[in-house]
Amino acid sequence: MLPLALNTVTVRERWSLAECIEGCARHGIPGIAPWRDKLAEMGVARAARRIRDAGLTVTGLCRGGMFPAADAAGRAAAIEDNRRAIAEAHAIGARCLVVLGGGLPPGSKDLPGARAMVREGLHAILPEARAAGVGLAIEPLHPMTCADRSVVTTLAQALDLCDELGEGAGVAVDCYHVWWDPEVARQIARAGRRVMGFHLCDWLVPTTDLVFDRGMPGDGVIDIPALRRMVEAAGYDGPAEVELLSRRWWAEDPDEVLAIMKRRHATAC
Amino acid sequence: MLPLALNTVTVRERWSLAECIEGCARHGIPGIAPWRDKLAEMGVARAARRIRDAGLTVTGLCRGGMFPAADAAGRAAAIEDNRRAIAEAHAIGARCLVVLGGGLPPGSKDLPGARAMVREGLHAILPEARAAGVGLAIEPLHPMTCADRSVVTTLAQALDLCDELGEGAGVAVDCYHVWWDPEVARQIARAGRRVMGFHLCDWLVPTTDLVFDRGMPGDGVIDIPALRRMVEAAGYDGPAEVELLSRRWWAEDPDEVLAIMKRRHATAC
Repeated sequence: MLPLALNTVTVRERWSLAECIEGCARHGIPGIAPWRDKLAEMGVARAARRIRDAGLTVTGLCRGGMFPAADAAGRAAAIEDNRRAIAEAHAIGARCLVVLGGGLPPGSKDLPGARAMVREGLHAILPEARAAGVGLAIEPLHPMTCADRSVVTTLAQALDLCDELGEGAGVAVDCYHVWWDPEVARQIARAGRRVMGFHLCDWLVPTTDLVFDRGMPGDGVIDIPALRRMVEAAGYDGPAEVELLSRRWWAEDPDEVLAIMKRRHATAC
Repeated sequence: MLPLALNTVTVRERWSLAECIEGCARHGIPGIAPWRDKLAEMGVARAARRIRDAGLTVTGLCRGGMFPAADAAGRAAAIEDNRRAIAEAHAIGARCLVVLGGGLPPGSKDLPGARAMVREGLHAILPEARAAGVGLAIEPLHPMTCADRSVVTTLAQALDLCDELGEGAGVAVDCYHVWWDPEVARQIARAGRRVMGFHLCDWLVPTTDLVFDRGMPGDGVIDIPALRRMVEAAGYDGPAEVELLSRRWWAEDPDEVLAIMKRRHATAC
């Protein structure tokens, strides 16, 4: 079994990063993945110290990327922001920076153009990432997010980018985003040691919202153990991180959410 | 420009098939694609006659497939139903039967198993389809439908099935379902003359429902002309069929919907 980690977005409506760190320690969850808004709120140096004191692995910092923009100034600002994210990831000892593609620029229908902007952005930040020893974990998102969150929609596409970028680039495999892909087994095998993160999340039937209706592992239809075995066979032995964007779970007591996460990790993953 | 066709689902809440046929004739729309419920309601022989008298091309019959089921009896029933669909498609002179994969059987997480059921189902019905001269147009659906509507999620996967099935099998390319795919250009080129249908539908931002919030061509972010040029380059010269499952458009006067479809076909496709 891969060790468990909490992505802070899972309890974002009720807990600060400090509370997430305490919660992980209290529940015996050995890993954490902060989002940048929570990290900024707490302060990077203070968060780094507390995470270290709690003995937690930082599985990844969420999130960099989001490169496409309507004009050159917007694209340059995105690249600058990614440089700050790399520095933050380094400061908290994160295994990687999770990088999303970003969607189409407002008003644009130029999908190949947006994809070229992602490629350019990745090339621009790779030297800083390498210098900081922070891996760039490109996370393909579910195709239903293509218009507004990620024009990187498949592992094959993310790995084509990795092939081109070389050392320092890898992928984050999120069950929710890749489970439907007929290529998933082949692409995880292709990724090999470039799997930098593994995220647990389930697909509910019915799914009532394209963003905020993700399922607790075990509540949906994804064969999560099969995907876990694929990343393990590829050589991944890092944490398995529960990342839920879910109005249903945000309404619950976070201590209860963490307790359920732990049980599901043991029984359904 | 490819000739326009109306998929009857676009106005399903207000018009019978007879009204759709009259509407197409009145608006100068040369093609129609009936759904089987509307066809059954009108009666196959009567519908065939009226469609012929109106001089309409039948782009496809919607829909066959939906093969996965929890038990052997369910799978056999699905195959029998597909045989009836092939006979109906032949009777109304349809260019093809549109075949969906179907989702996971209730309670199942076995995606490879469901995909094997689709493959078996297609093999089972291919002889009847060939004998009737009805093409099987496998339509990959958007990955967000994988759990409950179609385990066939990409053109590459559909074309792998076509390669295996041989003569009589092809694909239906629906802009809404394939636009996000980094492989779309390559796979449409690979399909070549096996493109049996081309469906127009746009992706709205935001999309508020996973099934019933499809956009009128021109209202969303899909570069429909780019996809149309791809299918044309592959050798397709059949109709372009507007197929909207949309609560917003179902609430409108169907004559208004057809008029808007015609304008968008001329300006945005």
